[in-house]
Amino acid sequence: MKAAILTIGDEILSGNTINTNSSWISKTIDSTGCQIVCHLTVPDSKKHINNGLDQLFLYSLDLILCTGGLGPTKDDITRETLCDYFNTTSDFDRNYWNELKARFKSIGHVIPESNRSQAFVPKVGKVFPNPKGSARGLWFEQDQVTLFALPGVPNEMKAMIRATVLPWIKERTAVPIHVQTIRTTGSPESVLIEKINKIVETDHGCRIGYYPSSLGVDIRLTSTKKSAISQLKEKLCFALGTLVYAYGKKKLEEIVVDSLKDSDQTISTAESCTGGLIGHRLTQVPGSSNVYCGGVIVYNDYAKMDLLNVKKSTLKIHGAVSAETAWEMSQAVMQRFKTSIGISVTGIAGPGGGTKNKPVGLVYAGLTDSNGNKTKKFMFSGDRNSNKLRSSQAVLNWIRLMIQNAK
Amino acid sequence: MKAAILTIGDEILSGNTINTNSSWISKTIDSTGCQIVCHLTVPDSKKHINNGLDQLFLYSLDLILCTGGLGPTKDDITRETLCDYFNTTSDFDRNYWNELKARFKSIGHVIPESNRSQAFVPKVGKVFPNPKGSARGLWFEQDQVTLFALPGVPNEMKAMIRATVLPWIKERTAVPIHVQTIRTTGSPESVLIEKINKIVETDHGCRIGYYPSSLGVDIRLTSTKKSAISQLKEKLCFALGTLVYAYGKKKLEEIVVDSLKDSDQTISTAESCTGGLIGHRLTQVPGSSNVYCGGVIVYNDYAKMDLLNVKKSTLKIHGAVSAETAWEMSQAVMQRFKTSIGISVTGIAGPGGGTKNKPVGLVYAGLTDSNGNKTKKFMFSGDRNSNKLRSSQAVLNWIRLMIQNAK
Repeated sequence: MKAAILTIGDEILSGNTINTNSSWISKTIDSTGCQIVCHLTVPDSKKHINNGLDQLFLYSLDLILCTGGLGPTKDDITRETLCDYFNTTSDFDRNYWNELKARFKSIGHVIPESNRSQAFVPKVGKVFPNPKGSARGLWFEQDQVTLFALPGVPNEMKAMIRATVLPWIKERTAVPIHVQTIRTTGSPESVLIEKINKIVETDHGCRIGYYPSSLGVDIRLTSTKKSAISQLKEKLCFALGTLVYAYGKKKLEEIVVDSLKDSDQTISTAESCTGGLIGHRLTQVPGSSNVYCGGVIVYNDYAKMDLLNVKKSTLKIHGAVSAETAWEMSQAVMQRFKTSIGISVTGIAGPGGGTKNKPVGLVYAGLTDSNGNKTKKFMFSGDRNSNKLRSSQAVLNWIRLMIQNAK
Repeated sequence: MKAAILTIGDEILSGNTINTNSSWISKTIDSTGCQIVCHLTVPDSKKHINNGLDQLFLYSLDLILCTGGLGPTKDDITRETLCDYFNTTSDFDRNYWNELKARFKSIGHVIPESNRSQAFVPKVGKVFPNPKGSARGLWFEQDQVTLFALPGVPNEMKAMIRATVLPWIKERTAVPIHVQTIRTTGSPESVLIEKINKIVETDHGCRIGYYPSSLGVDIRLTSTKKSAISQLKEKLCFALGTLVYAYGKKKLEEIVVDSLKDSDQTISTAESCTGGLIGHRLTQVPGSSNVYCGGVIVYNDYAKMDLLNVKKSTLKIHGAVSAETAWEMSQAVMQRFKTSIGISVTGIAGPGGGTKNKPVGLVYAGLTDSNGNKTKKFMFSGDRNSNKLRSSQAVLNWIRLMIQNAK
């Protein structure tokens, strides 16, 4: 099956919005064996959308996925343009309009008249549900080509691809592609690749991709043979050891929350330079309240002393960014919240605040549990955002390894 | 002047690499008045590149910017494909080859033979310099259309756009485009548009785009006339009033940190359902340590009572998610951190934890300062992530408005 993605939107062409929708759709569909042969982005203009569709109909495609322009505003012209392109008109769906009215009322707003456009249904063609918003999808068929039109709002588009488009593709593709992602953290890409170089060079029958980010390196294996993937995965994981923290899409914070649950432990956080990011990441996981009791953000010395009893002398002699301070912080937060584990992080995120001895990127973390206190020193080299992110990842990874080793 | 961007690369179509090059080029060129009418991405295949070029030549374009496939490896086929497309062959540039050899030697490498392909120059057409790498750009002209081919490596591509392409465009475009973004929060897109509908329908001489997200709606005005933008901006801002929090790219957390600094105030946070996100956002702003002293993440009842002295009876009678609890939290955190303002947030982020009376998405916030305590109730309808994000935005916005009103 061959497919193309048509993105409609001035904001993409002006460079104000990065086209992450197209890459998400491609990545999501790639595993079905459906081949994406083209991404095309055109302005919010009837003429350009028509031209774009004409071009795409010249390819021998089976599927066009079109995003954008289904909102309630005047520049949302996709609905009307597509109806004209496929020579049809549309009917007003009073039931859906009443549903929308009720939805707006429940969040305390009167529905604006402009939303009316979202209740129209093409006479030749279908609509399909939007589990996350008011703009339903449109579904047209012509000359063996199926076109799905979806809103450009990412969470709405994703929910609709998962619920309607993906099952439709899977029904029609004979040889699916199998995908396995191995998620690693704690090693730079080049060092990681050296560890697996010999395995990668064997005749394993898989395509391998490496995707580094501030959170680590994901290794993505794809093949039409499930067995080839599982064999290669086993070899790679053996070579990579504890660098591997998850498979598929699971995030490190989910792994941490799961293993805390499994081992009947609770945790609390004392954050300085990460400013609440570790708490935020842990509480992104549904059900984290069973293991995460809370924490303190001690962004200045006074707060460190008042809330965590960090000694004045420790701050004076060793400084706020030191193993000694991290040590006292993790111990105190564990006691304060009566949790089985207390973790702490203190460092210099930048851009200001660095000195020769304590440069931007220097971070100390502490971990206290029933076995006592441990501290770790890290040195990161990114900007403020990246240093905060890497610090949070390093601390979460430390918790993961600690629980794993205790098993 | 009209332009299109042609991206060549399997890694973009598979979704493994996000096409940030196209958005960077668009953004960089947008302000010159050159209009980008299309982004097209095709695979590393001669047939598909030819098809793509045929399509683009159907538009009445002045300029095609093509990226990718100029490296030294076997799948880098752009150079050869373009020479064939423009009916020309290429000559070996011995001087450039010697230069490349010397460059590799200076960094301690022997040049690989594969780099030889990068020393070829089209017979009809030109090359232009790459200040950051070995792949020079290619420059073709046909039927009034100029095509620049650039490598896909972002820092090389950017340097070449700045050094050669941008000056070339500026020489040929008389009227640059002016841009102004108005950032709003606190109102859904359709309700916001109703407020400005009459203004938008007048003959204001600007292009208007609306960009909604979980954080609010950005309104982007573009025009060749600076005065048209400033007149429209003034009218819109008058109609939108306090919904407008910033112009350009400034984030709400930056505005809040700035206004706290300006008014010599400090702040602390007591977070329940946002789990540290408000602290994280405030500490994303460099220099926030001057106004943000820290906070507590009180994720369970025990922490609320122990760290913030929330009364057991309050939790029993009104519940953790209530105006009363929010009230006690913000007051206590302000006193605890000795800040001028204390803010609090408690709610049900979902997906679990909702009841009939207190559904998922219900959030209470508290704000305490020298004038006393205030609380607010919000009802959000997103998933866990979106409810946390919207809660943090609503609280930051409340702080902004409070400081603004006190002026």
